[in-house]
Amino acid sequence: MQVVETIAEMKRVRKELTGPVGFVATMGFFHEGHLSLVRKARARNPSVAVSIFVNPAQFGPAEDFDTYPRDLPRDLSLLEKERADVVFMPSVAEMYPPGFDSWVDIASVTDRLEGASRPGHFRGVATVVNKLFNIIRPDVSYFGQKDAQQVLVVRKMVQELKMGLEIVALPTVREDDGLAVSSRNAYLNPEERKAATILHRSLCLAEELWEKGEKDAGSIRQQMRELIQKEPLARIDYVSIADPETLEEMDEVRTPALASLAVWTGRTRLIDNVVVE
Amino acid sequence: MQVVETIAEMKRVRKELTGPVGFVATMGFFHEGHLSLVRKARARNPSVAVSIFVNPAQFGPAEDFDTYPRDLPRDLSLLEKERADVVFMPSVAEMYPPGFDSWVDIASVTDRLEGASRPGHFRGVATVVNKLFNIIRPDVSYFGQKDAQQVLVVRKMVQELKMGLEIVALPTVREDDGLAVSSRNAYLNPEERKAATILHRSLCLAEELWEKGEKDAGSIRQQMRELIQKEPLARIDYVSIADPETLEEMDEVRTPALASLAVWTGRTRLIDNVVVE
Repeated sequence: MQVVETIAEMKRVRKELTGPVGFVATMGFFHEGHLSLVRKARARNPSVAVSIFVNPAQFGPAEDFDTYPRDLPRDLSLLEKERADVVFMPSVAEMYPPGFDSWVDIASVTDRLEGASRPGHFRGVATVVNKLFNIIRPDVSYFGQKDAQQVLVVRKMVQELKMGLEIVALPTVREDDGLAVSSRNAYLNPEERKAATILHRSLCLAEELWEKGEKDAGSIRQQMRELIQKEPLARIDYVSIADPETLEEMDEVRTPALASLAVWTGRTRLIDNVVVE
Repeated sequence: MQVVETIAEMKRVRKELTGPVGFVATMGFFHEGHLSLVRKARARNPSVAVSIFVNPAQFGPAEDFDTYPRDLPRDLSLLEKERADVVFMPSVAEMYPPGFDSWVDIASVTDRLEGASRPGHFRGVATVVNKLFNIIRPDVSYFGQKDAQQVLVVRKMVQELKMGLEIVALPTVREDDGLAVSSRNAYLNPEERKAATILHRSLCLAEELWEKGEKDAGSIRQQMRELIQKEPLARIDYVSIADPETLEEMDEVRTPALASLAVWTGRTRLIDNVVVE
């Protein structure tokens, strides 16, 4: 496995890779979600590239960029095991040199949900993913469905700017009790860890109501909220039943729909979603 | 010469081109400025692609998108003569499908000069050029120095997003009396055409003052303004002596400097510039 730390070196290494190249963009601190993406890339492509880059541009000033969990030795060892060909770990200084100011913005789908709670977040995501795609020139890139809105933003960018690669979303990986795996789960103490299952439980409630024929999306959102409010360690950021393409909130339910939510559990903000089809 | 009207066809045709590919992005209605770019591309590359696309995203609502001069038969005939290999003429409907909302913005250099007078103009330029580069994947792209700020925006985008091509700026082509050639010169009546030389004359004055050792950029701007104000058909939009990289206005002159201006001549807005080195 080649470990590459500069853009120039990555461009050089890229020329030697046999295509198609499968690519997974990550911020490191790998969990089963990341590994499922790397495994899929490995199974389907002659070459696999993975980036590890904690992207400052997608963190707000009051967010956890500095404390975001990092464990590079473990990450590299896991990527060796999964037989990645290249790991690209650029520096912040090279990705965002002084005066950097070229931003990719997909405003219509980024000012809702996560974008509303985290202004500028998706501009940071779209910009870094655009730049990584330009450097690595993958044929296909794998993303986790857990970050549903991120998948939407990246898909829209690739399609609208004609970037010429395929975006594949893979299912959210969950713990036995339903909690979506996330690097931020590392922040949870044992009590919060228990309470965090409320995200998945409320999504299950939404699916259940759906199957029972509930037609009022507002009522589903309300019942999800009420369930979450019973959990003392949980605090709702948003609960949404929306169109999966436009992210507009639904009044009357129709399929497909994206049920998604963000909930603070102690000082940790967690997200989860399910697509009802 | 292949004439290509869809993105899918262009991507197919691109695969058959022998590299390096030289590319010229235009809005058509060719003059000697465009042709100088095509000739340079032809002289230096095995393959030459030219796009003709009047880009609505770079026109403001009160600007001349609808009346912008077009002469496709003549343009195609000229490109045949210059031995272009491919001309790409996508539709507005395909470049900007309903819901299109992926924008590239280089804010720091786009809110000054042209950007200040034409809000959103460079966002439209950067976005369409980004998309054209993704579709055509040129190795080198040629731009006219007349649109100095556009060159700066495109260079910054390519460098910062690591688009992996070379940007070459070629000198402004001028009429015998110094007027920079421009598609918009077609709007001028004979009197206005005479008055329009005031742009070049004021740039010559700036160079002259510079050579005489004038140190105060404000004084140079002021003398340029006074010269232009003597021309009854001319109305100043801006007159600038700025840093060619940051476009910040200079107080004390230093080289290199970008002397640039926009002047209304009748109902036609013209721009010109010179780099003092």
